[in-house]
Amino acid sequence: MDLILGIDPGSRATGFGLVAVDGTRFRCLGAGVLRTRAGWDLAERLHRIHEGLVEVIRRHRPTAAAVENVFQARNPRSALLLGHVRGVAILAAVREGIPVFEYTPTQVKQAVVGYGRAEKGQVQHMVRLLLNLERRPPQDAADALGVAVCHANFAAGPLARAAQQAGRAP
Amino acid sequence: MDLILGIDPGSRATGFGLVAVDGTRFRCLGAGVLRTRAGWDLAERLHRIHEGLVEVIRRHRPTAAAVENVFQARNPRSALLLGHVRGVAILAAVREGIPVFEYTPTQVKQAVVGYGRAEKGQVQHMVRLLLNLERRPPQDAADALGVAVCHANFAAGPLARAAQQAGRAP
Repeated sequence: MDLILGIDPGSRATGFGLVAVDGTRFRCLGAGVLRTRAGWDLAERLHRIHEGLVEVIRRHRPTAAAVENVFQARNPRSALLLGHVRGVAILAAVREGIPVFEYTPTQVKQAVVGYGRAEKGQVQHMVRLLLNLERRPPQDAADALGVAVCHANFAAGPLARAAQQAGRAP
Repeated sequence: MDLILGIDPGSRATGFGLVAVDGTRFRCLGAGVLRTRAGWDLAERLHRIHEGLVEVIRRHRPTAAAVENVFQARNPRSALLLGHVRGVAILAAVREGIPVFEYTPTQVKQAVVGYGRAEKGQVQHMVRLLLNLERRPPQDAADALGVAVCHANFAAGPLARAAQQAGRAP
């Protein structure tokens, strides 16, 4: 069984979600949001997010981490800030010996909704259906679960097996 | 005596430099460059840079870390990449309990050369003179020493004391 940690990095709120993959069945083993406070300086935010993710990894021992890869940002300044958070998020997985995979927003939408240009709301809706969640998770947690489902489809799920059978890399 | 670790983050080469401040005297206690290989993926680069800086901090126990703050970048993509490296660099200091200070390129030039619009080469030249270095350090190490000298001037050096005497915060 694979256990995938999806991460949706953000300087105010970093979402995480754990998806267990057993054959073609997906199950959510937990999800949450690491929040930072408005008054905190950058160093404190990065520390909080990094330590929070390390704690999640140590508690659940996922077999892989999946992070959304952002190529577009509104401007260099917000890209720089997001980069800081992605950096310490990726480092949390590497430090704990977990392989890290990156997916573009289009790949996430394609994997979860089946359509690369889907609205963000559709991803959250499908995540809830796919994982059979009773309640709608917080947005950042839902996004993190979406990335985890995406990795499950690409690397550990039926799409990967179909691709392997067809002799192609997933 | 203050011991300042200056850091010049970059995804291929991250410079570091240690400057001891004793009254008005500056002394270089070491400098170097953490290099990553072209074939490495992002996670490996971040891990190498982070662990390298943690090692430097544990060996020298600096009292403060100073990192250049970049507001401008060529484009969002390079800003995002630089952000990853800055994030894991800042985290190395925070994890080891070292306070982190950030300075703009203009502040570094002002502190080292006395002119905020100085050329990059002038900073390296003045760093060598100020620290009485026999050889010219690698460029990334020189830039890191420049940021450390800047912090020394702002927070631990004669400028700060003069400011304190005058009743102003540095």
